[in-house]
Amino acid sequence: MELKSIGTIYTPYKNNDAPFQPLQNTEDDEFYIKLNEEYVEGLKDLDTLKYIYLLYYLDQNKEQTNLTVKTPWSDKEIGLFATRSPNRINSIGLSVVKLLKIEDNRIYISSLDAFNGTPLLDIKPYMKDLDTKDDADHGWLEENDFEHLQLHIDGKTH
Amino acid sequence: MELKSIGTIYTPYKNNDAPFQPLQNTEDDEFYIKLNEEYVEGLKDLDTLKYIYLLYYLDQNKEQTNLTVKTPWSDKEIGLFATRSPNRINSIGLSVVKLLKIEDNRIYISSLDAFNGTPLLDIKPYMKDLDTKDDADHGWLEENDFEHLQLHIDGKTH
Repeated sequence: MELKSIGTIYTPYKNNDAPFQPLQNTEDDEFYIKLNEEYVEGLKDLDTLKYIYLLYYLDQNKEQTNLTVKTPWSDKEIGLFATRSPNRINSIGLSVVKLLKIEDNRIYISSLDAFNGTPLLDIKPYMKDLDTKDDADHGWLEENDFEHLQLHIDGKTH
Repeated sequence: MELKSIGTIYTPYKNNDAPFQPLQNTEDDEFYIKLNEEYVEGLKDLDTLKYIYLLYYLDQNKEQTNLTVKTPWSDKEIGLFATRSPNRINSIGLSVVKLLKIEDNRIYISSLDAFNGTPLLDIKPYMKDLDTKDDADHGWLEENDFEHLQLHIDGKTH
């Protein structure tokens, strides 16, 4: 089971400087993908979609993988598979992003919490009827944790 | 970039017999994961979530990867990255499934269109505020295509 990079994700986040959740971006061109030229034909019809999934390789996370992890805002130990911790058994990251525009092999997207230079593995369509679960919940993430997290997402001091 | 299997996905679908979209399952124990014993600690807190993402390795798809693909119900050529075709550059499958129950290393889930014996790569939480996009669309998939697809999903003859 081997993977290869199909492109690169560009973000304002250098190593050790990524937020633990994506911030609202203020500029439209801060987050983008450069797809390797040989795959550009595969982008046909992608611009009809509002949201896409990105799969990427978490190559800049060198921390040890543990089966329970602490969230940055609490001392609770949470099971690895119930978290989005980047230190996983298989180092694959997943984000839903808004598709802003496509210019040749460059795909402009909304913010995501990946380091600059992250290798892209796949793009998949996010389809309303398959992927929008209106009855989803936050599980172990308590309501006030989520409100705190939302302040981070919104980039508000608190 | 290498991957390893962390468990196995069990489904009623043998090779060449999987639906192109998951059918509604009638039995609660038809679809389940057996996680390798050494990772069971990582399942802590997972049962608080209603939905989870599964990432898996599409090891039983041997067809050629093309940059445009035809859907099973139309002759239109769609760009690979705008489809969920299993014949991808990196053979990673992604599904949102409902978490039904966990018994030791066995995780019972709602249906997904993966072959029996598919290697599991990761489990991630599906979190309402991060992953439920109420303004998502179907992109190139036209409304009547989607109605047709829904008949397949519901397992109705038509």
